[in-house]
Amino acid sequence: MTEKTVTIAMNGVTGRMGRNQHLHRSILAIRDSGGIVLPGGDVIMPDPVLVGRDERRLKEVADAAGGARWSTDLDTVLGDPAVDIYFDATATAARAGSVRRAIAAGKAVYCEKPLATSADEAFELAGLAAAAGMKNGIVADKLFLPGIRALERALKSGFFGRVLSVRCDFGYWVFEGGLEEPQRPSWNYRAEDGGGMVLDMFPHWQYLFEGLFGQITAVLCRAVTHIGERRDENGAVYTPTADDAAYGLLEIDNGAPGGILATVTSSWATRVNRDELVEFHVDGTDGSAVAGPRECRLQPRSATPRPTWNPDVPNPLDFRAGWLPVPPQEAEENAFKRQWASFLRHVVTDAPFAQTLAEGARGNRLAELALASSEQRRWIDVPGRADQ
Amino acid sequence: MTEKTVTIAMNGVTGRMGRNQHLHRSILAIRDSGGIVLPGGDVIMPDPVLVGRDERRLKEVADAAGGARWSTDLDTVLGDPAVDIYFDATATAARAGSVRRAIAAGKAVYCEKPLATSADEAFELAGLAAAAGMKNGIVADKLFLPGIRALERALKSGFFGRVLSVRCDFGYWVFEGGLEEPQRPSWNYRAEDGGGMVLDMFPHWQYLFEGLFGQITAVLCRAVTHIGERRDENGAVYTPTADDAAYGLLEIDNGAPGGILATVTSSWATRVNRDELVEFHVDGTDGSAVAGPRECRLQPRSATPRPTWNPDVPNPLDFRAGWLPVPPQEAEENAFKRQWASFLRHVVTDAPFAQTLAEGARGNRLAELALASSEQRRWIDVPGRADQ
Amino acid sequence: MTEKTVTIAMNGVTGRMGRNQHLHRSILAIRDSGGIVLPGGDVIMPDPVLVGRDERRLKEVADAAGGARWSTDLDTVLGDPAVDIYFDATATAARAGSVRRAIAAGKAVYCEKPLATSADEAFELAGLAAAAGMKNGIVADKLFLPGIRALERALKSGFFGRVLSVRCDFGYWVFEGGLEEPQRPSWNYRAEDGGGMVLDMFPHWQYLFEGLFGQITAVLCRAVTHIGERRDENGAVYTPTADDAAYGLLEIDNGAPGGILATVTSSWATRVNRDELVEFHVDGTDGSAVAGPRECRLQPRSATPRPTWNPDVPNPLDFRAGWLPVPPQEAEENAFKRQWASFLRHVVTDAPFAQTLAEGARGNRLAELALASSEQRRWIDVPGRADQ
Amino acid sequence: MTEKTVTIAMNGVTGRMGRNQHLHRSILAIRDSGGIVLPGGDVIMPDPVLVGRDERRLKEVADAAGGARWSTDLDTVLGDPAVDIYFDATATAARAGSVRRAIAAGKAVYCEKPLATSADEAFELAGLAAAAGMKNGIVADKLFLPGIRALERALKSGFFGRVLSVRCDFGYWVFEGGLEEPQRPSWNYRAEDGGGMVLDMFPHWQYLFEGLFGQITAVLCRAVTHIGERRDENGAVYTPTADDAAYGLLEIDNGAPGGILATVTSSWATRVNRDELVEFHVDGTDGSAVAGPRECRLQPRSATPRPTWNPDVPNPLDFRAGWLPVPPQEAEENAFKRQWASFLRHVVTDAPFAQTLAEGARGNRLAELALASSEQRRWIDVPGRADQ
Repeated sequence: MTEKTVTIAMNGVTGRMGRNQHLHRSILAIRDSGGIVLPGGDVIMPDPVLVGRDERRLKEVADAAGGARWSTDLDTVLGDPAVDIYFDATATAARAGSVRRAIAAGKAVYCEKPLATSADEAFELAGLAAAAGMKNGIVADKLFLPGIRALERALKSGFFGRVLSVRCDFGYWVFEGGLEEPQRPSWNYRAEDGGGMVLDMFPHWQYLFEGLFGQITAVLCRAVTHIGERRDENGAVYTPTADDAAYGLLEIDNGAPGGILATVTSSWATRVNRDELVEFHVDGTDGSAVAGPRECRLQPRSATPRPTWNPDVPNPLDFRAGWLPVPPQEAEENAFKRQWASFLRHVVTDAPFAQTLAEGARGNRLAELALASSEQRRWIDVPGRADQ
Repeated sequence: MTEKTVTIAMNGVTGRMGRNQHLHRSILAIRDSGGIVLPGGDVIMPDPVLVGRDERRLKEVADAAGGARWSTDLDTVLGDPAVDIYFDATATAARAGSVRRAIAAGKAVYCEKPLATSADEAFELAGLAAAAGMKNGIVADKLFLPGIRALERALKSGFFGRVLSVRCDFGYWVFEGGLEEPQRPSWNYRAEDGGGMVLDMFPHWQYLFEGLFGQITAVLCRAVTHIGERRDENGAVYTPTADDAAYGLLEIDNGAPGGILATVTSSWATRVNRDELVEFHVDGTDGSAVAGPRECRLQPRSATPRPTWNPDVPNPLDFRAGWLPVPPQEAEENAFKRQWASFLRHVVTDAPFAQTLAEGARGNRLAELALASSEQRRWIDVPGRADQ
Repeated sequence: MTEKTVTIAMNGVTGRMGRNQHLHRSILAIRDSGGIVLPGGDVIMPDPVLVGRDERRLKEVADAAGGARWSTDLDTVLGDPAVDIYFDATATAARAGSVRRAIAAGKAVYCEKPLATSADEAFELAGLAAAAGMKNGIVADKLFLPGIRALERALKSGFFGRVLSVRCDFGYWVFEGGLEEPQRPSWNYRAEDGGGMVLDMFPHWQYLFEGLFGQITAVLCRAVTHIGERRDENGAVYTPTADDAAYGLLEIDNGAPGGILATVTSSWATRVNRDELVEFHVDGTDGSAVAGPRECRLQPRSATPRPTWNPDVPNPLDFRAGWLPVPPQEAEENAFKRQWASFLRHVVTDAPFAQTLAEGARGNRLAELALASSEQRRWIDVPGRADQ
Repeated sequence: MTEKTVTIAMNGVTGRMGRNQHLHRSILAIRDSGGIVLPGGDVIMPDPVLVGRDERRLKEVADAAGGARWSTDLDTVLGDPAVDIYFDATATAARAGSVRRAIAAGKAVYCEKPLATSADEAFELAGLAAAAGMKNGIVADKLFLPGIRALERALKSGFFGRVLSVRCDFGYWVFEGGLEEPQRPSWNYRAEDGGGMVLDMFPHWQYLFEGLFGQITAVLCRAVTHIGERRDENGAVYTPTADDAAYGLLEIDNGAPGGILATVTSSWATRVNRDELVEFHVDGTDGSAVAGPRECRLQPRSATPRPTWNPDVPNPLDFRAGWLPVPPQEAEENAFKRQWASFLRHVVTDAPFAQTLAEGARGNRLAELALASSEQRRWIDVPGRADQ
C-alpha cells in the first residue's frame, strides 16, 4: 500500500467558488478523509499550492487551509517539476493565458468553466492540451449531483428502453430589486459584461445532455428579456441588455433511429412549481424519470396509468403518486469533490474521464449557436466532435 | 317574462360527441333546467330537431331524447323558417357542404371543430357567414372548463401584472397495443387518415391562447413520431405515419412591449408528472398561475419564495406548497353546455360571442403553419386577423 | 358483420358455481353485452341449453335465466348437432363419464376443475379429446383476475429481466366452529371426502405457475393438519383427517439457466398480514412485483433501496412505500367471463387457448405428487409435457 | 452493597464487531451506567483487558477506551488468576485454539459465533468446557432485540395458545456491483472463503427458533445461487460459488402433538415488501404475531377477521390494519449489551443462561445439515441434545 502525492497549483482560490467548493470542500476534504483509496489499497493524496495575485488575501486563505503553501508567482510554481496539475478558477477573461502557460509547462490542466470567452479560443486551448498529450478536464459539477447520478444509473441499467424525449425545466424568480433584494449580481443581466441566460446555462446543458443522453446535433433557441428594468447592487435602476430567459429545443443523436428531442426552458422570471430548481423529465419506451439535483423519481412502463380525457369529473388518478423515488445508493458527497476525485484517478491511473477541455469548448460553442439561432429564427446544426 | 323558443337543427347527433355532449348534456340539460334565464327574467328555450342519415339510429337517439323531432332530410329542415340555428357535429369531411347550405338558407350556424379540412376552405365559410350577416360560432369547449375560467378571471383581474410567458404541457402515454389496449383509435396515428398531434391539438391551442392571452403572431414547431410501431383495433401491427408529439413555441401579441413567449408541448408518448393532463403555467410580473381543466393555483409576487442554488443540502423550500388553489366561483357546469348557453344568448340578445367561424379558421391555419414550420425548421409568421 | 351463434350444453348449473359464475356472470353477461365482438366486427353469441337431473330446480334456474332452454336428458342434448360445446360443472365424481360421452358425440368440451378424481383418469380424458380433434378447455379463473393479468403483462413486457424466485403465500383463518361459524364446509377437512389443502389448491398453483412462469419440474411438499378438532355444519365435533396447510417448494424451468425457485405456502390456519388473501412475490434481476387477485405492485431495479442491517436504530427506510401500484389497464370484468370469452374465440376462430384438459390433468398430477412428496419426505420430479 | 469486579480478557477488539458492539456498546456502556445492579443492590463491574496481536492498533483501541489495559501475550493474560472470563471475537479460524487454552486455564468462556469452522470441533470445545465445569456462552444477539423480546414475552404469556407454524422471511437486495456498489464483501459469495447464506444465517436461525419455540428435529433446505455474476471490492467481475438464497423448512418439537412447522426463507436477491429486514410470522390457535428486530404486532383470535374469497370486488378488509403493535415494555438497550449483562449475572450469581457453547455447536450443525439436505434433496433429521 503506497501513497502517491499529487501536487496541485490552485489558481483563483481567493474567489468564492475556488475557496469553498474546490479548496475546502474538495481538495482539503479529500485530504481529511485519508485521500482517494484505489482498488488494491494504494492512496492518492492531493497536496495544494495556492496561487494568486493578492498576497494578503492569499495568505488568509492559506492560513484557513491549515497553513497551505502559497505563491503569487505563477511561472515559478509552474516551473516546479513537483507540481502535477494546474487548476484555474480565476475570472474567465484571464483563464486562457494561464492555461496556455500551464500546458507549455507540461502540467495536467483542470479548469472552472467557461474555458474561454469564445468557443474558438476554447477549442484552441483544448487542441493545445491534446497535442501536448496532457491530461485535462473542466468542471462539470452538476453531472455529479446525487439526483443526476441516479438518473445516469437508470439510463445505464436500461430502465428507459429507448429514450424518446427529455424536457428540462430550469429557473426561478430573480427579484428585480426595489422591494426585494436581487439574489444575483447585476452583471448577469448586462450583455456587455458577459451576462445572459444562454451564456450562463447552455454550457451546463451541453455537458448534462451530452454526458447523459448523446451528441447534440442541432439547436433551436429563443432568448428573451422578460424584465425590462432592474436595480443593481447600489439600488440604481438599470435596463437589462442580456437575455433573462431562453426557450430551446435540442436534437440529440443517441445512436437510435429518430434520436431524442429535448426541450430546455431556462428562466429567471418564473415562479417554481416543481420539486427542485431544475428538473429533467425523461420519457422512454419502457419507463420515465423526473430527476433534479438531489432526487430522481421513476415510473416503469408496467405501472403507467391509463388516463382518459374527461373534464366533467375530477381526475380519478393521482398522477404524481405514480412515481417511485430512487433511494440513495451512495454516501452523500459534494459534487465538486466527486469530480475532483474522478480527475485525480484519471491523472494517476488513466481511469476514464469524460469532461475534457474539448468538451468544455463544445459548451461554449453550444451557447454561441443558441444565440445565433435566436437571432436567425431557425434551427442551427451543431458540429460533431469529428468536425469541430 | 316571456319564453323565446329557439329551434336548432342538430346534425350528427348519432355520433358520440353529438349525442352526449351537445344533445344530452347541453341542449336537453338546458331544457331540463328551465332554459336560459336572461337579465329581466325572459327565458330562452332551445328546441332540437335531430337530423341524420341513418333512420334507425336517429329514431333511437330521438326516443332516448324524450321523443325529439327528427328528420333524414336536411334541406327540408333548413327550409323550415321556424328553424333558427343549424348545428353540425358530423364528420369533418362532410361539414363544409352542409354549412354552406345552412348559410344559404339564412340560418345561424354553430359547428364542431375543425370547421373544414383546410384553412382556406374554413376561411371561405367564415367569410360567407359574415357576408350573409349570419351569427356563427364554433365549439371551443376547453375555454369553458372550470380551471381555465378561473385562469381567465385571474387574467382579467390584473393579477399577473404584465404576462411574460406561458408554458403549456399536454399529454399522456397512449399505449401501443399488444400488452395493453390502446386508448385512442389507430387513425389518430395515420397521416393519410387526418391523424397527428398537430392537426388534433393546435386548433385547441389557437382558441385557448388567443382567447386568454392575445393574438399569435409566429409559430415554431417540431413535430415528431416517437413510437414507430403500434397495433390497431384488430391487434394488427402498423407503422404510424403521423406525428405523435409536437414541441412548439408561440409569439403572442398582448399589446405590451415584448409580448408573450409561450411553449406548447403536446405528446402521446409521455408519462404524466402533473396534477392534470394539461397544465398552463403563466408567469407575470405580479404573479403566476398553474391552470388545468379543473384546477387553478396561484402564487402572487408577494408570496414568491427566494431560492438559492445549493445542491449540497436538501432544498429547504417546498415549492409546490407555495401555490394557492382558486376556490370554486360558480356552480359546476358542463363546458359544452356553458358555451351553448353563451351562443344562444348571442343569437337572441346580441351578447358578445368570441368563438366565431373565423376564429375556427384561424385554428386550422395555426395547425397548417405549425406543420410547415416543422418541415422548414424555422419560425413562421402567423397572419393577423386583418390580413387573413 | 355476421353473428355466429354458439350453442352450449351447460351441465351442473343448479350448483352455486355453475349458476352464478358460469351461467349468469359469464354466458348471460356476454349475451347482455351484445356477444363477443371479433376484430372485423363479427360477433359470437353464446346460447345456453341447461342440462341437469332435478327438473324442478333446473326449471327455476332456466326461468331466472330469462327462459333458457333446458333438458334432463344429456344424451339427447349431446345428440343435437346444433350443440357446439359441452360444459360441465357437476360434482367431480360424475364428470369423467359425461365428458367421455360429450367427446364421443363430437362436442368441444369445457370443464370445471378438477377434471377427474385422479390424474390418470384426467390424462385419459385429455387424450381422448385430443385424439378426437375436439377443442377443449378447463376452468383456470385465477389467471384472469386483474392483479394476475397485471403481473402477466409485466412478465411479458420484460420488466423483471431474468425471474429468479417466486414466493406465493395463500391462506386465512378458517374458524373451527363453536364460538365462530366455519366459513368452509366440513368435507374440506376430511380426506375420505376428497378434502384437503393440497387437492384443493395445487391444481390452482399448477395453472398459475405454469401459465405465468414456466414448466414445474420438481415439487417438495409438507402437508400438515394444524387443527385437530373442528365442528361440522350441525355443530358436531369431528376430527379432521385431511391436511389444512401445505408448505411447498417448486422448481420451475423457464428456459433460463438455474430456472426459478418458488415457495408456496397454503394454510387455513393462519392470520392474514398481507393486502390480499393470496400474494405472489416475484423477484427478478431488473425488478420485483407483489401481485394478488386484484392488485399488483412493482419495484424496478433502479428504485431498489439499499438497506444495511442496524437494529440499534429504527429502520430509516419505509420498504412498503417503495412499491408502485399498477394502475388499471382494462375494464373490470369477471374472471370466469373473461376465460369463457377466450374459450369461445378459440372454438370459433382458432385463437390460442392454453388451458386445455391436458393442463387440467397436470393440475391433478401436481397435487398427487405433492402428497407423495410429503409422505416420502423428499423432492419428487414432475414429468414434462412430453412424458406425461 | 458490594461491587464485584469481573475481569474479562477481550481478544479481537481491533475488529469492527469486537470494538463497537462488545467493547464500547457493551462492556464500557455497562461500566458507564454503573455496572449491573443485582437484586439486593450488589453490583457487577466488568473490567476489560484487551488482547491482540497488532500492538499499534491495540494501543489505539485501548486509548479510545479510556486507557484500558492491553496485552499482546494471550498466555500471560490467561495465566493471571484475576482474569475471570475469556472473550473471543477473533477470526473464526483462530477461535478454537484460543478457546482451548482459556478452558485449560480455567476461565469462563464467551465467544462470538460461529464457535468453530465445523460442528464436530464446536461440539468438542463445548464438551471440554462442560467437562471442566466452566461457565460458557456464545453470542446470540438477535434474541435480545426488542421486537424478538416482545415476541418471547407473548410466547411465555400463553398468548398464542398452541403454536402451529412459523414463517420466517429474511433478506434484501445485495447489489451486484457495476452500477451500484455492493453492500457486502465479496467473500460472502465465495464458498471457498466460507461464504454463503446457509453458513451465515442458519446458526442465527438455530438459536432464534430453538430459543423461542423448541428443539429443531428435522431440516429441509434448498440452497441456490440466484446471481451468477458479481463485482468485487476492486470492481472486478467474479463468479459467485456460494449460495445467495436458501429456502428451508424446519420441524420443531415444542412438546405438543404435531409440533411446529416452520418455513425459513433467506435471500440476498429479493426486494423487501415487509416492514423490517426479517420478520417472524407466528400462528397459534389463540393468536398470531409478526415480529421483526424492532417491532412486534399481534392479532388475537377474537379479533381475527373472517374473509371470504370474492375477487369480483375489492377486498373490503384492510388486513394489515387488524394487527396491534406491542408497545415498548423496557428501555432501549443494545442487544449485545443485554446479552453480556445476562452472561455476567450467570457467571457471578448462577442465574440461568441458555446460550451455551453446546448451543453454538448446534448452530454449526444445523447449517451443515441444511447444506446436506440441499445436496440430497430430502429432509434430514437433526440430532437431539441428548444424542449430539
